[in-house]
Amino acid sequence: MKKAYILLAEGFEVIEALAPIDILKRAGVEVVKVAVGSSLDITSSHNHATLDCIYRIEDISFDDGDVLILPGGNPGYINLRNNDLVLDAVRKFFNSDRLIAAICGAPTVIAMAGIGINRNITCHSSVLHEMTGYNYTKASVIKDDNILTAAGAGHSIAFGLEIAKCLVDNDTLSRTQQGMEL
Amino acid sequence: MKKAYILLAEGFEVIEALAPIDILKRAGVEVVKVAVGSSLDITSSHNHATLDCIYRIEDISFDDGDVLILPGGNPGYINLRNNDLVLDAVRKFFNSDRLIAAICGAPTVIAMAGIGINRNITCHSSVLHEMTGYNYTKASVIKDDNILTAAGAGHSIAFGLEIAKCLVDNDTLSRTQQGMEL
Repeated sequence: MKKAYILLAEGFEVIEALAPIDILKRAGVEVVKVAVGSSLDITSSHNHATLDCIYRIEDISFDDGDVLILPGGNPGYINLRNNDLVLDAVRKFFNSDRLIAAICGAPTVIAMAGIGINRNITCHSSVLHEMTGYNYTKASVIKDDNILTAAGAGHSIAFGLEIAKCLVDNDTLSRTQQGMEL
Repeated sequence: MKKAYILLAEGFEVIEALAPIDILKRAGVEVVKVAVGSSLDITSSHNHATLDCIYRIEDISFDDGDVLILPGGNPGYINLRNNDLVLDAVRKFFNSDRLIAAICGAPTVIAMAGIGINRNITCHSSVLHEMTGYNYTKASVIKDDNILTAAGAGHSIAFGLEIAKCLVDNDTLSRTQQGMEL
């Protein structure tokens, strides 16, 4: 079974986190919610939902895992990139050729980690000025080798599906899409 | 300020509920989460998230409110349609020409309430056989007067945007879409 880690900090964007969680679970991928903060309970931006994580980032080595997912949301992505353990995890996935998937403001976490310079990326237009050194295109989702980025909350379902596409076979992806009436 | 009620029962589909909640809040609409069940805390299908509602359905008269939102998810939509107060609320919105928005399996709640026969609808293909008397089209979202339906989880963002379109002006809708990079 493939395994995804999703990092959740206070103020994550609720669709950007829950669309990939939902889609990957539908596709048979194990999804581990990892709390970045002092509590295992992490609340989304605008207080839409509180998710109970099983682990805090301090408890995880990230030696396994097929993808590291970074949702956006304000101040969620700021809280992610201000945490050194998050930046270490991003570098660990990058350096072991494993997938990193970031949406909205979260591509700036990749930039803060200093990896993947010159890669093709997209991001929320409000953080574009922070992506110096990357090759930005205005697009829904862009995958360049092991860095997958998406523009914003409106593309959360496309983001989740693109991650699933990297992890499961075509039949499983097709069944997952059919179950969502896509 | 426009006001939306969203009915949440155990086993609701998480994207189908949270996409409209998120999008409508972005658009400046008040969203009231109403618990259908014995607790104010309602857990989604696959246990992805637990949402804290402010009211139980027993506490709400539904005399106000511009839209009644019915998310799908299994057994969420079953739990909705098995509750007489839910069916009463659906009839109350319909009979006062207010919007009812249902996605995935939840159009069957409309059928169970016995309203809107002959209307143009869509729904999840797995419940199509329960929509006898309605004019089904395979589509993302269909609005026929005050009944708005969507096909499934993959169309949750389109569903939320279409509800917003019914409640707010074009400039607000446009700003909401831009914030989501749409």
